Amino acid sequence: MAPRSVAVIGASTNPHKSGGILFKNIVDGAYLGRLYPINQRADVVLGHPAFPSITAVPEAVDLAFIVVPKAGVKDALEDCARSGVKSACIITAGFGESGEVGREAQLELASIARDRQILTIGPNTIGLINAEQSLMGSFAPFPRWQSGTISIFAQTGIFAGAAALQVMSQDAQRLGIGKSIDVGNKVDVDEIDFLHFASGDPTTEVIGLYLEEMRNQRTFLELANRVKQTKPIVLLKPGRTEQGAVASQSHTGSMASNEQVLDPALRQFGIIRADDIDDFFAYLKAFSYLPLPRGERLGIVTYSGALGVIAVDETVREGLTLADFSEATLRRVGDVLPAWQPASNPADAWVAVEMGGYRSGHEVPFQAVLDDPGTDMVLGILFAPPNADFPDFRDVFSQLRQRQPTKPLALVIYGGEVRERWLPELDGAGIPVFSSTRLAIRALRAMARYSARRGVVYEPMAVTV
Amino acid sequence: MAPRSVAVIGASTNPHKSGGILFKNIVDGAYLGRLYPINQRADVVLGHPAFPSITAVPEAVDLAFIVVPKAGVKDALEDCARSGVKSACIITAGFGESGEVGREAQLELASIARDRQILTIGPNTIGLINAEQSLMGSFAPFPRWQSGTISIFAQTGIFAGAAALQVMSQDAQRLGIGKSIDVGNKVDVDEIDFLHFASGDPTTEVIGLYLEEMRNQRTFLELANRVKQTKPIVLLKPGRTEQGAVASQSHTGSMASNEQVLDPALRQFGIIRADDIDDFFAYLKAFSYLPLPRGERLGIVTYSGALGVIAVDETVREGLTLADFSEATLRRVGDVLPAWQPASNPADAWVAVEMGGYRSGHEVPFQAVLDDPGTDMVLGILFAPPNADFPDFRDVFSQLRQRQPTKPLALVIYGGEVRERWLPELDGAGIPVFSSTRLAIRALRAMARYSARRGVVYEPMAVTV
Repeated sequence: MAPRSVAVIGASTNPHKSGGILFKNIVDGAYLGRLYPINQRADVVLGHPAFPSITAVPEAVDLAFIVVPKAGVKDALEDCARSGVKSACIITAGFGESGEVGREAQLELASIARDRQILTIGPNTIGLINAEQSLMGSFAPFPRWQSGTISIFAQTGIFAGAAALQVMSQDAQRLGIGKSIDVGNKVDVDEIDFLHFASGDPTTEVIGLYLEEMRNQRTFLELANRVKQTKPIVLLKPGRTEQGAVASQSHTGSMASNEQVLDPALRQFGIIRADDIDDFFAYLKAFSYLPLPRGERLGIVTYSGALGVIAVDETVREGLTLADFSEATLRRVGDVLPAWQPASNPADAWVAVEMGGYRSGHEVPFQAVLDDPGTDMVLGILFAPPNADFPDFRDVFSQLRQRQPTKPLALVIYGGEVRERWLPELDGAGIPVFSSTRLAIRALRAMARYSARRGVVYEPMAVTV
Repeated sequence: MAPRSVAVIGASTNPHKSGGILFKNIVDGAYLGRLYPINQRADVVLGHPAFPSITAVPEAVDLAFIVVPKAGVKDALEDCARSGVKSACIITAGFGESGEVGREAQLELASIARDRQILTIGPNTIGLINAEQSLMGSFAPFPRWQSGTISIFAQTGIFAGAAALQVMSQDAQRLGIGKSIDVGNKVDVDEIDFLHFASGDPTTEVIGLYLEEMRNQRTFLELANRVKQTKPIVLLKPGRTEQGAVASQSHTGSMASNEQVLDPALRQFGIIRADDIDDFFAYLKAFSYLPLPRGERLGIVTYSGALGVIAVDETVREGLTLADFSEATLRRVGDVLPAWQPASNPADAWVAVEMGGYRSGHEVPFQAVLDDPGTDMVLGILFAPPNADFPDFRDVFSQLRQRQPTKPLALVIYGGEVRERWLPELDGAGIPVFSSTRLAIRALRAMARYSARRGVVYEPMAVTV
């Protein structure tokens, strides 16, 4: 995951060939380690002196990317073994995912990896990213990638890239992913290896897993049960319904997991399961931005009574508890509201803005609800028509966050251009913004459930797979 | 809803005052009817000759907007009565929503409206839009508004504007709303009036209602039960859970509706209820773009096996039926897939693209699944990394849509810039794109349920409110 030296076998001078694309992405990313293009014909690739073979490189590199045509992959991996390469990432596709011949070729790669002790990911992967090292070892370019405390493991050829593109392009707020590894056909390195790595990695604070199959469900559950004591694990694993499981089996050709055991065990252990991609990234965002809540009582501040009522419906539907505000909170919120509008949860604060201006209209109700000992987390539902903007915005929310640094504060913002201006400011203040009330409430629920079960390692129990 | 002449009482020359903003929005929108600014001091407002009072206007206008300070609203409405104005839209706030004094003032407005027979909306509304007439009678500007077959009625001060801003700004695909009316405090015109209007309006094909309270639940249900025979009705009415109902009551000060009766009756009658704003606009989009399905059997075409499995989970979870493909369909899809990949539902077609190129890789599986008599609707799940684009895109999807014009075809697209290029092309082809698989499946489910109950007017039944 953090190689000091990288070779790219098949680094082409042609920027349209696979090996050229990947090498260019690494060069453009300004990788901080030593970089060796391997190219049989060129002396220099994108300014880097090239070597005709990995065996000609003057050191045993930590990681070699293999981006050569299918027929040459086996030789390349054997060359890696010969020159002491520690790990390999096989980008090339056309193996286990493509019929009997491919499956046999893949078995050969697996046995080389195992016999020669090369940690191998792929084949059929978009690659590996370590943003802390500026290593953009990916077949797809991600110019807007931002580093952070999330580490992701994905078992898929295409999905991870599509999902990441979606996140990077549509969401103007930062989602900090420090490390991302796509193992493709999972010939060697698997989710168990990754959990071991991530639990010990000092800069990983949140773990995201996308799995199509589990190699060993029992081992996974036992390990995840321990790892979650220090780091939350968010798991997206489709095939949860019976028909989904059938589809999953036909897609990966793998054994279906035992959902009768898996799902309740995950819930009991406090491993967070996402239903879909929206959940997956919303949960990762919440865990990476927010402190853990102490319970599941939600306080809501809104600037639209209608959106507040919708939020109450969602809170109940998703199984969170609507907090009872204390007398002191009701009095403090009431102070900025007219006599005819009684304070309650949700605190509907638009009139407070109209009466006292933007600053106090936001500050007072949010502070009161954050300070209330009866709230474990706070959700603000703002809307951002052109006239809702105010210059103190960043200042107000930074101070709110600092005032109660141990209580989660999340926002949903409906509206257009002003929303886009607010997002980076809230990013700086450490406040996550979700694309819908439902997603925000689901993310907060995930945090509350994790928080309640985090400290406990449950008995190895009745995991009979 | 379709005035031939409009007056704006309080049309200010100051573009920062409420009356100035609204009048400017109407002028910028290029309203097709006759327009009269009413201003006691100015001779001309934005190039339009002004009148000192509505009584000085040389005709009895169809609609007068009232945008004067609170204290002047009553006089303005009485002036309207005196000069034969047929309907009024009171933008000014500070009435029923703001305490006892405001409530009394509002009762006065209500009695003038009733006694003098002026159809009145507001007070406390952002206004009324009729895109067919280019009438942007809204306090909030909507430069990107697009006309269409949807008509919306909203009972709220702020929500409708915030929601509309959200839709217009984030969704690059057209959502055609021909008419939108926000009745604010609902002093006179209500949802029953609107249903009568919309059911008879020739250009309204889809009806969207946002209600905070129902004036008469029984009348509403009986009318909606009939109207839905020709036009689908999508209803967003929060307060569905018990705690939500309490919050709603405290927000609007109105009687809670009887959810024990309302919810099952809506379901039985085929009135579509949205859980939240995302549902609301997704359902409206589906109905405005697509023909009705004949059943609820869903065929899926995907370019990511993983996304396909997630879609199967969502299909089952939301209660739709996964279609069984016929032998002919399996054969046709199989023709563009390698022997090792058996065709199934979802049809996973990425390899078809790799083998046969973009055109046939999209055309063949989509056509086969659309043609299958066992599918009632088809969902395509695409992803759009930079290399997924192809020049025939629009052509392929236009032809698919034309080939089976009576079977719904919807898409979800994951990805970045390419997605943005594809959206307007699909808009032209009449294919809706949803922001997530879950929303797409929920929207298709809403259509299937409506389709099944549409033709039947159920007995006035046990609606005891």
